[in-house]
Amino acid sequence: MTYSFTPIGVVHSPFREKFGIPRQPLLVPEAKAKLELLAPYDCIEAFVGLEEFSHIWLTFIFHQTMREQWQPQVRPPRLGGNRRVGVFASRSPFRPNPIGLSVVALDGISNQHGKVELLLSGIDMLDGTPVLDIKPYIPYVDSIPEASSGYASEPPQAIKKVRFSEMAEAQLQQRDDGAELKCLITKLLECDPRPAYKNRSQSDRIYGMRLYDFDLKWRVLGDEVEVIELVI
Amino acid sequence: MTYSFTPIGVVHSPFREKFGIPRQPLLVPEAKAKLELLAPYDCIEAFVGLEEFSHIWLTFIFHQTMREQWQPQVRPPRLGGNRRVGVFASRSPFRPNPIGLSVVALDGISNQHGKVELLLSGIDMLDGTPVLDIKPYIPYVDSIPEASSGYASEPPQAIKKVRFSEMAEAQLQQRDDGAELKCLITKLLECDPRPAYKNRSQSDRIYGMRLYDFDLKWRVLGDEVEVIELVI
Repeated sequence: MTYSFTPIGVVHSPFREKFGIPRQPLLVPEAKAKLELLAPYDCIEAFVGLEEFSHIWLTFIFHQTMREQWQPQVRPPRLGGNRRVGVFASRSPFRPNPIGLSVVALDGISNQHGKVELLLSGIDMLDGTPVLDIKPYIPYVDSIPEASSGYASEPPQAIKKVRFSEMAEAQLQQRDDGAELKCLITKLLECDPRPAYKNRSQSDRIYGMRLYDFDLKWRVLGDEVEVIELVI
Repeated sequence: MTYSFTPIGVVHSPFREKFGIPRQPLLVPEAKAKLELLAPYDCIEAFVGLEEFSHIWLTFIFHQTMREQWQPQVRPPRLGGNRRVGVFASRSPFRPNPIGLSVVALDGISNQHGKVELLLSGIDMLDGTPVLDIKPYIPYVDSIPEASSGYASEPPQAIKKVRFSEMAEAQLQQRDDGAELKCLITKLLECDPRPAYKNRSQSDRIYGMRLYDFDLKWRVLGDEVEVIELVI
């Protein structure tokens, strides 16, 4: 038996590739996105009452990591990329059914020019992600602070100090969204998004991630991350 | 664009019909179930590490409430069945994509005779529910006690006292699972599962729900629920 679903909406987010995306939602509140509802679900009647909720669940498709073959085990980044766990003991995007689940902050609901959009923050989803369902977050059901969670019991810590080169500072100052963007970049890089299993001793290596309309270039020097430039 | 999914498992629960099921997971910890993994997902390797987690998310299909037509608004039972809210401001099973989401307690993982089963409690799912995904519950991500949640900010209260007729008591005593079952029935009925919009003044009406292998018959007398009998 197979079940088929059609997306109800699509996410417009700053994240244009998987590398560098926060590893869980709400870790970077500065990561903002819009969820555009697709017809026939772009009717405001279907959202009446949702404005009373501060957070929502999004059920979505890991559309860029869909694979033919499933693997029973994965190597979570937080275990240093060495230890394997079962795929169902992880939140890895590589799963038998590539369905994602994220709780995000609902900042507002826009209903303009016949389009309904949800304004979100704390997002950990790729630009273009298809969304299958939206549900309100209900703390008396969903919030279990005392739950035990094995290898994932502590949030990842900010471990790097982020500084910006003169060039990067100048580029940010030229943008309307410069201040906001500096804050977002700092939060993204202070957790060190590099894969744990790569050789981190190679300190002259320049890393890049696609963010909005530019490539963000940086390097790691000991405990510091230096943002080199924004390449348009 | 349409996405197709094949269930990875199926739930074996005491609830054989929608009426009477707890309205959210974990409200009735006595509600136990097994999740049977289907081939090729019934390999224990895919679950290594999951035993460290006390709770898991199940993404599942509302298989008995799938409809051709979606409605933009629903009437949540907790609003007395009168006020309408948008379907995306509710956890109603009647949704454009009939995907359910429940957090349940993981009591154990059984790996016997080449079958993998997860032992669950606090279940709010119908017997036979197809499961699409299992994810560990991670409190630092999923637990947001301070989230605001509008009309759903308080758990439903136990509002009825439940007592058992002599016949029901005798029937329970004959069963191996009698003590457990009495506890489950009490928890299920003390929240008064009757639909809010039905005429509740009709006190001589006998209600029934299918539970395990019997029909549970009860009636409401003021602030009390009387369990009449278990009809095999």
